[in-house]
Amino acid sequence: MENPHLEEAHEALRVRRSREETVLLVGECSVKYEGRASSTLEPGDRVLLIKQDGSLQVHRPFDLSPVNWQPPGSILRLRIQDRSLIIRAYNPRGRESLEIVFSKIALLAVLDLRDSGSFFLHASEEEMRSAILLQPSILEEGFKPLAVERPIEPGFIDILGLDGRGTLTVVEVKRREAGKEAVLQLKRYVDSLRMETGKEIRGIIAAPGLARGAQRMLAALGLEFKVISPQRCEEIIRRDKERRMTEFLT
Amino acid sequence: MENPHLEEAHEALRVRRSREETVLLVGECSVKYEGRASSTLEPGDRVLLIKQDGSLQVHRPFDLSPVNWQPPGSILRLRIQDRSLIIRAYNPRGRESLEIVFSKIALLAVLDLRDSGSFFLHASEEEMRSAILLQPSILEEGFKPLAVERPIEPGFIDILGLDGRGTLTVVEVKRREAGKEAVLQLKRYVDSLRMETGKEIRGIIAAPGLARGAQRMLAALGLEFKVISPQRCEEIIRRDKERRMTEFLT
Repeated sequence: MENPHLEEAHEALRVRRSREETVLLVGECSVKYEGRASSTLEPGDRVLLIKQDGSLQVHRPFDLSPVNWQPPGSILRLRIQDRSLIIRAYNPRGRESLEIVFSKIALLAVLDLRDSGSFFLHASEEEMRSAILLQPSILEEGFKPLAVERPIEPGFIDILGLDGRGTLTVVEVKRREAGKEAVLQLKRYVDSLRMETGKEIRGIIAAPGLARGAQRMLAALGLEFKVISPQRCEEIIRRDKERRMTEFLT
Repeated sequence: MENPHLEEAHEALRVRRSREETVLLVGECSVKYEGRASSTLEPGDRVLLIKQDGSLQVHRPFDLSPVNWQPPGSILRLRIQDRSLIIRAYNPRGRESLEIVFSKIALLAVLDLRDSGSFFLHASEEEMRSAILLQPSILEEGFKPLAVERPIEPGFIDILGLDGRGTLTVVEVKRREAGKEAVLQLKRYVDSLRMETGKEIRGIIAAPGLARGAQRMLAALGLEFKVISPQRCEEIIRRDKERRMTEFLT
């Protein structure tokens, strides 16, 4: 509905078949929030988004975050009063109340959105590093991390540790297929650390894959490769978070 | 535009007069994010909101937060490819890229939203307490806080402190006009602390106002009232945050 009368909008929202429908409402409104804190927002054009889980958010035409919102499970009340459409969202758990007063509506859409698509998040290099620290055996049985981002002449070693036989091991983590550049970088770290310590040093690239040219180079330089995927690391981090949450709650 | 062809939507977005216009796009899409981490979202119906500051957010029909987003200042690119409308948002600062592939569009709205309304946030009781701790003189010159939420027989004392002459002082903070109930609560705390310590105790209600009936009761019980508004507390907290940020940056 474009530029509906407030009564038309009120009726369309009232007969909304179920809370399963998503609502988009664009128009001039002011907002009041009353809860643990309180806030008021003067009139202006905004976008109101009401989702099927009962969550609600008011967006100004700028800023990433909504200016006001209520969480899933909020209870909605509508009424027409003083030539305004008043939408009240009450969050029973937080005893918070949000009141949005629309004086003009430019657009109202009641949408039946179907979304069962899965969302996959893959870890960053920092997170992959954290996963190896949480569970060093994914790199190699017996591996013991000693330091993270250890400074070395040409940069920083991602993870420095000892392998099962006590050999100093430099680990370079990449979240994508590692190329020749990564191999050369690892070589510089290994050489530099060998100079510094006078000891035997192992070098391992931990990445989801190794580019073809890089494989030969790696072998020629006496370095190693270990398959570690961002997905696997994401799981380790998630399980650790869940474990800590459970420990916290019990 | 309702159910526009992808080409129509592409054209409408392309000729959008300026980035000053807000865009709402509802339809079936999949999303890929590539930055420090990466993510993929399988196809489903979603709401895309592009704001005049260049920020962009993809909302599923549930959850308060967007599933994917880019911050203000992102650079937008559009193209039609393989029967899809592809919107790419690149954040140059974070080197992050978001690609939204629409296969169907149910609704497209290009909106000229005007919003210059001010937003006022008033502190919660916890924040009012923090403000008094940060700047005890707003309660009374010479006041020194000793403890927060100090347990006492019938509950917790908001702030326990010493006044300028060294008298133990119980402060009860309210973010709205305080009524008789608040006065009686303070009286119980004062009596209980007097029993416990055997000393003289002062009791002060710190609130933006005092209900009429409560004034007489307060006077009769030998208790006091100090005007402290949530707005003033909000300012103190904001200034403190700014100060700490400045110290952090310099």
